Amino acid sequence: MLSHMLSNESVEPQGELAQIDRIRRLARVPRGSSIVLGIGDDCAIFRQRGATEDLVFTTDMLIEDVHFRRKTHRPEDAGWKALARGLSDIAAMGAAPRFCLVSLALAPWADSNWVNGFYRGLLRLAHREKTVLAGGDLARAAMVMCDIVVCGSVARGQALRRDGAHAGDGIYVSGALGGSALGFSRLRLNKRADKAQQRHLKPEPRIALGRFLRGKVRATAAMDLSDGLSLDLHRLCLASGLSAEIAAPPVFPGASKEQALHGGEDYELLFTALARAIVPGSFEGLPLTRIGTMRKGRPGAVFLDGTPLPPLGYDHFRKP
Amino acid sequence: MLSHMLSNESVEPQGELAQIDRIRRLARVPRGSSIVLGIGDDCAIFRQRGATEDLVFTTDMLIEDVHFRRKTHRPEDAGWKALARGLSDIAAMGAAPRFCLVSLALAPWADSNWVNGFYRGLLRLAHREKTVLAGGDLARAAMVMCDIVVCGSVARGQALRRDGAHAGDGIYVSGALGGSALGFSRLRLNKRADKAQQRHLKPEPRIALGRFLRGKVRATAAMDLSDGLSLDLHRLCLASGLSAEIAAPPVFPGASKEQALHGGEDYELLFTALARAIVPGSFEGLPLTRIGTMRKGRPGAVFLDGTPLPPLGYDHFRKP
Repeated sequence: MLSHMLSNESVEPQGELAQIDRIRRLARVPRGSSIVLGIGDDCAIFRQRGATEDLVFTTDMLIEDVHFRRKTHRPEDAGWKALARGLSDIAAMGAAPRFCLVSLALAPWADSNWVNGFYRGLLRLAHREKTVLAGGDLARAAMVMCDIVVCGSVARGQALRRDGAHAGDGIYVSGALGGSALGFSRLRLNKRADKAQQRHLKPEPRIALGRFLRGKVRATAAMDLSDGLSLDLHRLCLASGLSAEIAAPPVFPGASKEQALHGGEDYELLFTALARAIVPGSFEGLPLTRIGTMRKGRPGAVFLDGTPLPPLGYDHFRKP
Repeated sequence: MLSHMLSNESVEPQGELAQIDRIRRLARVPRGSSIVLGIGDDCAIFRQRGATEDLVFTTDMLIEDVHFRRKTHRPEDAGWKALARGLSDIAAMGAAPRFCLVSLALAPWADSNWVNGFYRGLLRLAHREKTVLAGGDLARAAMVMCDIVVCGSVARGQALRRDGAHAGDGIYVSGALGGSALGFSRLRLNKRADKAQQRHLKPEPRIALGRFLRGKVRATAAMDLSDGLSLDLHRLCLASGLSAEIAAPPVFPGASKEQALHGGEDYELLFTALARAIVPGSFEGLPLTRIGTMRKGRPGAVFLDGTPLPPLGYDHFRKP
């Protein structure tokens, strides 16, 4: 999703965040609209007249040679990942997925075997997560590109957002970070399949965890870690108008601290909870680790062990 | 949208329709799902508990060198067309647009001027049609590709579908056909801007007409003409399990009969109405013309002045 609300204090004025902010200003949601939350979070929130639940919507692209590679990703992996990215946004809102729409542009090399494999992988995850494939679009293009929309539902007014954290809230992450970045680097070296590679190839959206954080923990803010902790926590801080003090997060076995801090595509959840909230040490076997505290201060600033942590995570639009 | 329900009698087993049918069979919508209508129409239909209206969803891609060209389309034209294609599907269901999501992959040549122009064109149409831009995704890729999702709302159970036509129903089209194909051919010849070129560059979604056809005319079936009359009427006939007898449709000034029969992207509405229905000769200045009658017979077959009309409209997947 177009997932950022830029403040004047942004440390990253030239990249994706600035472009998204320009679009957000152009788009302007009118008062009284059914869109309760527009550009700037993992999902948009839509409230229908008479409905007891809000609907949340996310859209995510999966692009050849950006998000997957023909050589290293089987078509089943590409299809799984396309949906997993969208479901992860639904998880971050504490919502339950309902249906998805899939647009697929096919390169000349993508034959019907590839297409069938892609949909097999996608539908395996869709069936497991009770997400109906309701429609989409098909076209030919010079490269494979998929865009997926997922709709989820959540009790009215209860969706987890990025802008709800308070000063003093604890900052938590699920799982261990850096595994996808490690797996990606190993894929490129053609090493044999291992857990890190699986982590990159078949990310697990944390749907059940998201609902638990909303319903039981009453998390104050949440988002999914798609672009790296340093950049994503920066975004959560900006949205909440706060800064953050953290220690090093749990590191995926074999990954470097850099990969854990800045590597993208872990699809774990980052969330905040009131100081008095009871957050268990794990949920269904997945560790939940407190890594720091939200603070008053320059919005968006993140400090690691007292030192400013630059938002170095993945940005499509950063100048090299 | 993945817009076809294939019957065994399809005359086009190798193309887009067959691919979509394979996906449809894999996708299988479970009983009791909130998805009232899945793959196979201009939009999917979603019914939320407690809501008085159904929501309809469509998704459409706009791809560089397939749906627009950098040389001939200003960025404003590309943005307008991206949304117009989705709004045309909403019109075909007789629905009112509510919001849209826009995913945009940008080629290296697409600078921020181009991106701003694209959103300006898109938002001009969005504001006119009261469609909120609620979110999206941004990425870099080797070529420009846009995918748009539009959500509309319509009174519960009242959406116009392709499968509702009866034998004996009149077949109608709005406007005159072939203008976009004519304009496209002139663009390629670099002739000066004229009405046909405008027709291709800035298609007009027939939102008000769609709602009129649903609410006043009580049309029995409808769809938008995106891929050419011959192919689109074939699809409507297949969905309704009927055949069609037609005479030549109204031809856009300067266009050929071939362009009117097979040319795509006119975005006029094709609809059927009971024999006793009162269909005015025009709606808000736009002609509504009866071109034929739905008949029992081989599903999908279309006869023009008694001769079989092959579905030659645009198909991304037809073998050359």
